[in-house]
Amino acid sequence: MDLKSLIREIPDFPKPGILFRDITTLLRDPDGLRYTIDSLTQKCKDTFPEVDYVVGMESRGFIVGTPLAYQLKAGFIPVRKPGKLPAEVHSIEYQLEYGMDRLEVHKDALQPGSRILIVDDLIATGGTAAATAKLVQQAGCNLVGFGFIIELRDLGGRGYLPDVPIVTLIEY
Amino acid sequence: MDLKSLIREIPDFPKPGILFRDITTLLRDPDGLRYTIDSLTQKCKDTFPEVDYVVGMESRGFIVGTPLAYQLKAGFIPVRKPGKLPAEVHSIEYQLEYGMDRLEVHKDALQPGSRILIVDDLIATGGTAAATAKLVQQAGCNLVGFGFIIELRDLGGRGYLPDVPIVTLIEY
Repeated sequence: MDLKSLIREIPDFPKPGILFRDITTLLRDPDGLRYTIDSLTQKCKDTFPEVDYVVGMESRGFIVGTPLAYQLKAGFIPVRKPGKLPAEVHSIEYQLEYGMDRLEVHKDALQPGSRILIVDDLIATGGTAAATAKLVQQAGCNLVGFGFIIELRDLGGRGYLPDVPIVTLIEY
Repeated sequence: MDLKSLIREIPDFPKPGILFRDITTLLRDPDGLRYTIDSLTQKCKDTFPEVDYVVGMESRGFIVGTPLAYQLKAGFIPVRKPGKLPAEVHSIEYQLEYGMDRLEVHKDALQPGSRILIVDDLIATGGTAAATAKLVQQAGCNLVGFGFIIELRDLGGRGYLPDVPIVTLIEY
């Protein structure tokens, strides 16, 4: 299935000069959604035979991460923006193009030694994925790898990630 | 399976006097996640034999909505906070306890006549679900019903929703 034909390109979003890859048109297509989840699941099963938890980052990481966790018979752990999680959290600040952002995860969700797969819709500069990897590894978890629907290769995001396998479906 | 035993209760979150029902402990449990998705899917299949699209509201509606769309062989349509969706949107303002909030959905995602199921993790006062229903119905779609993991019955949220079937798994 030609997934790229289901991804819409929107110029100058969120700001001038950026060509936004819009996956909402892919998610809305029933066959596209199934094929995306099934393909990512199969690639992840082949690459990561044992996954205890899928970690997904708010918000689009939730869209990919939960069905993947379901398919892999793993649990799902959300990484959220500040103030959203109700129990005690680990927190990490990370650099954006302008300014800083922060991510949080429940402390008791990250058990030392558990095998974690980090999932998001897209990897661009890798900032969010790298920060999430730090949260996971600082808690003593075993980060087995990453899964993304889309990789924007020119932005070199994978260079900022720990040296574990990375599964992607579509590259630009 | 006793799903309630997997839902954590956190007093005074997000503010004093509120007992927060935390589903992250349920999502993190592999069997709990599978049972939740499977049960909600089965109830929705029984109640709504034909669903073209599942609509889920940012952010926790994404967690429930995408696996449900996958299972129902439907497409997934995200309803998001302002400024997140890149193409032309329908927008709706709605009342919160203090102040207003706004939701957006892509205009071309809501095709007149398509059969829509609105899904979220929890229904409390029903404000977000009612606003989403308006977005869907104003676009000429056929709102077939709602699905929630949790219903907080005392808050009477279902009284604010259109008169279509509502599927829930857990009631408090």
